[in-house]
Amino acid sequence: MMRIALAQTDSCVGDLAGNAAEILRHARAAADAGARLVVFPELALTGAPLPGLASRGSFRAASRAALSRLAGELTAAGLGGVGVIAGFLDQDGTGRDDAARNAAGFLTGGEVMATAFGNHPRGRFGHPGRTKLEGLAAADRLTVVRFAGVDIALTVGANLWFDDGPDALAASLGAAGAGLVVNLTATPFEWVRIDARPALLARRAAQAGAALVQVNAVGGQDELVFDGGSMVVGADGALLARAPQFEAGLWHVDLELSAAGTPRSARVSPTVDQALTDSSSASVPPAPPDPSIPPGSSALAAADPLTIGPLAPARAAGIAPRLADEAEVWGALVTGTRDYARKNGFRSVLLGMSGGIDSALVATIAADALGADAVHGVSLPSGYSSEHSKTDAEELARRLGAHFRVVPIAAMVEQFVSALGLTGLAEENVQARVRGTTLMAISNAEGHLVLATGNATELAVGYSTIYGDAVGGFAPIKDVPKTLVWSLARWRNQLAEARGETAPIPQNYIDKPPSAELRPGQLDSDSLPDYELLDAVLARYLRARATVSELVADGFDAALVARVVGLVAAAEWKRRQYPPGPDIGAFGRYRLPITNRWREV
Amino acid sequence: MMRIALAQTDSCVGDLAGNAAEILRHARAAADAGARLVVFPELALTGAPLPGLASRGSFRAASRAALSRLAGELTAAGLGGVGVIAGFLDQDGTGRDDAARNAAGFLTGGEVMATAFGNHPRGRFGHPGRTKLEGLAAADRLTVVRFAGVDIALTVGANLWFDDGPDALAASLGAAGAGLVVNLTATPFEWVRIDARPALLARRAAQAGAALVQVNAVGGQDELVFDGGSMVVGADGALLARAPQFEAGLWHVDLELSAAGTPRSARVSPTVDQALTDSSSASVPPAPPDPSIPPGSSALAAADPLTIGPLAPARAAGIAPRLADEAEVWGALVTGTRDYARKNGFRSVLLGMSGGIDSALVATIAADALGADAVHGVSLPSGYSSEHSKTDAEELARRLGAHFRVVPIAAMVEQFVSALGLTGLAEENVQARVRGTTLMAISNAEGHLVLATGNATELAVGYSTIYGDAVGGFAPIKDVPKTLVWSLARWRNQLAEARGETAPIPQNYIDKPPSAELRPGQLDSDSLPDYELLDAVLARYLRARATVSELVADGFDAALVARVVGLVAAAEWKRRQYPPGPDIGAFGRYRLPITNRWREV
Repeated sequence: MMRIALAQTDSCVGDLAGNAAEILRHARAAADAGARLVVFPELALTGAPLPGLASRGSFRAASRAALSRLAGELTAAGLGGVGVIAGFLDQDGTGRDDAARNAAGFLTGGEVMATAFGNHPRGRFGHPGRTKLEGLAAADRLTVVRFAGVDIALTVGANLWFDDGPDALAASLGAAGAGLVVNLTATPFEWVRIDARPALLARRAAQAGAALVQVNAVGGQDELVFDGGSMVVGADGALLARAPQFEAGLWHVDLELSAAGTPRSARVSPTVDQALTDSSSASVPPAPPDPSIPPGSSALAAADPLTIGPLAPARAAGIAPRLADEAEVWGALVTGTRDYARKNGFRSVLLGMSGGIDSALVATIAADALGADAVHGVSLPSGYSSEHSKTDAEELARRLGAHFRVVPIAAMVEQFVSALGLTGLAEENVQARVRGTTLMAISNAEGHLVLATGNATELAVGYSTIYGDAVGGFAPIKDVPKTLVWSLARWRNQLAEARGETAPIPQNYIDKPPSAELRPGQLDSDSLPDYELLDAVLARYLRARATVSELVADGFDAALVARVVGLVAAAEWKRRQYPPGPDIGAFGRYRLPITNRWREV
Repeated sequence: MMRIALAQTDSCVGDLAGNAAEILRHARAAADAGARLVVFPELALTGAPLPGLASRGSFRAASRAALSRLAGELTAAGLGGVGVIAGFLDQDGTGRDDAARNAAGFLTGGEVMATAFGNHPRGRFGHPGRTKLEGLAAADRLTVVRFAGVDIALTVGANLWFDDGPDALAASLGAAGAGLVVNLTATPFEWVRIDARPALLARRAAQAGAALVQVNAVGGQDELVFDGGSMVVGADGALLARAPQFEAGLWHVDLELSAAGTPRSARVSPTVDQALTDSSSASVPPAPPDPSIPPGSSALAAADPLTIGPLAPARAAGIAPRLADEAEVWGALVTGTRDYARKNGFRSVLLGMSGGIDSALVATIAADALGADAVHGVSLPSGYSSEHSKTDAEELARRLGAHFRVVPIAAMVEQFVSALGLTGLAEENVQARVRGTTLMAISNAEGHLVLATGNATELAVGYSTIYGDAVGGFAPIKDVPKTLVWSLARWRNQLAEARGETAPIPQNYIDKPPSAELRPGQLDSDSLPDYELLDAVLARYLRARATVSELVADGFDAALVARVVGLVAAAEWKRRQYPPGPDIGAFGRYRLPITNRWREV
């Protein structure tokens, strides 16, 4: 029997020393819990993804050096007998022009005992789930390490997914005679994904005739969010353990593994200890966390951005169920926002509180991510702001416990309007830009991260003012369609009520018709189709890549579809200049040429 | 002998009907000049590159349909006997999920007689010169078409550059027994490129034992500029013809080609007619254009954006020399700016004229691109603007013949400063953002394209105000380092003087020390190293990918290098939100993670 620890860690890109320290800390806690083998995510040592860094020979050399140093430090810390498997950035040879490799290192006895290459990093460092061909083309042979009497096959990232030719990986796994297959991954969260991982892992385990451990990264990195949910599967395909999503930590499992050299015919299916097979028991292992409670709600604002609290002891792994839809999206948004802020050294955020649902949701995400005391809301009323907008903004801040101030903008707007003789759209946009300039000025003076509050629907059709409401360092809901904005608001309020807390978002926000309030009586519905309809068209067009004729065949009005498709193309120039935010795979990170005369009919 | 026309055209992305009409028009003019074969650039029918479009099955289907229709239209126009080779977007099969293919179509007799695939479009549509591996992995077999008694081998894009395995292309070319090799390309201009094309073409021609015609696209597309310079090389490697850079048009050559079926041993080297071999003659062919005169100086402002003037008759091709450094960069910047404006339907541009060299250069580029009457300059003096800034701005506009107005911003700035109690950097940035808001308001009211005036050096180190001087739809000099800004200004003035015109940029602009003028007496040198030094470090670090230790070994001060490297990393978030502009390969389009703790030492 071998006790194996799953170290589901949150690395910071480029922080080799900090990430190495985290690996060491987790390895120590795992050893304290009796683990013999500790498995970390893909690129745990470097963070992921690595655009512009993987191609630097100096960064690859630093990654390799940090791995060797880590091997020594593990032994110096008395952990030389433990096997540590961690992702790092390697290269084919030693020259500065050699190709970068997404690799796993096996550290034990003070040395890097083996390395295994994943698929080509250009694929992997782009957007893994969408780069199948690169993965295929560069899949590498299987690396098998004998450790503690067990042959362990190492795979990295997406190369568990792809067969290099007609089921070459299946054949390699079958021939390897491994007692355990390990896969390191850093898989970005996608809201709409049907989770194909358990079935794939079961198939691979069966092909290998061995148990399989997959450790996934957790945390946010610019536009990606890694969602954890690391898994253990038996050779018979049974799911034996799954770590929670969006939660960094250390879990262990005990596996009976075939000894090295055991003929395949003589093997029995690996079994796990009673604690694991009896995962429904209330005593051991602990019950999985309540899936309805979003992670990351603790306040980090007072902590040094990258100082993480004491590491909890390794826990025996149960089978954490996948989170329900809204809870899962919430986890991704909170994780993405929290990590962007803390990894970039921000302790507080600033946003305009317009009285609208978008800014209310962003404020609530920020409060869950960083603590309400880290959230600074500003009401920026113009002459066209309704009375309820102002009172609603204040009420939101009060419920959240966020800081709040009012900066009337009418006098500033009037200066522009009179100096330039503005009317119509130019006057509307000046209001939004005076707000943007005001937020940036407060940020400059006080050091907050400005959050842009635009949603995926308005980004898609260009219903925003560039340099106005679009200003910011991070945009938490840029991939959240408007209809999902409302669902999340309702869900978050219900969660609060279920916890006996005050619902953070006043009901009025959810009920009132959306308006940009840039002219008297303005409503979004003056300019845009009904949001239910619009989101349905956009999801089909952008995510499912439906053609216009398919949309029309689906029953959508042809003129509406043509209008939406035209708006999407015309808004590309504004999307290019929008701040980054978590890609949850709703509409995703579609990209068009700016100069583009193609209008599908 | 076959007369072959090189149709060096400027396609617009997505404008299938417009591009097809251009192909038809050029084919007619070529036939009028006696050409039997007309060769167009890579993706001439669709424009290039095609992010987000190549992956749409509906777009691929439309491209294929447009090609078939074009074949019919050519025959209907009496051109059925001409062979037309044009780039288009194809796919492997007919399903919507089939892979996109960068292809050449051979049209004659009313039909698409043959198609040839280039390398995989994901490589090609990204950034061709930098995607060698994708090119390699997907190189396809050679397509040979027999036409007018000659076997013509078709190659597309970068697949002329790469051998699929140990010189497989060379072997294919050798085995093909072709009388002519044709290559369609759309190669983005790079300032620093050592032009390896002539030597490569000579080698490929020798491998094929045949003459080679390469037609390159011309024109701007978002961040890319295609520079033309199409070439003809004899089987002996001699350069027989080269079209000018940055100039759309039609050139013809007469080549003696081996008849199909001629054994390789019996072939003589292809020869060209007297007009071409005697290209130094003053009479035939016409002298190449003066390389010191930048192309694109004609005013297009009054024309419908995509209505191109009457097509000049095909000219016999001479050997146009490559443009000298500054002239070549100028051609790229003018072409990129003109095409972004006209292809997006803008007839005029707007920019802040600060009195600084950057805005002076951008105004001059815009005047050369669109005509001075299309350029609207705005002086936006604050309380910190020097007197010479205001008079210099007016003098610049006067010399260019551009529109000019003054909008003092002190009153608007004062509203923000007093309402928010701003000082220091926050106050400096508000000035820049009031200017940005003013320019956007005028653009909203009058419909001009706003040009951002930032240079590559300040973008690299973050010496700009986001939402301030960084606003705009296009940024003509975003990849021009500051030292090159000065060189270009001097060169453009000298060109004017050589032509007997007024130098557009007042000498005072070139001589005065650069300043952002956001506080009294401020100079760039207060915050930044000397620009000569800074540009040298940035070029080595960003373009040559030198390591910090290599830079120090080169003699650069270690503290300076560390500071520059840190500034580059910290400015990534601002670069992501910067407008697009022509990539001339100076620092290029480097991209880093925003969240990034890696600081090379």
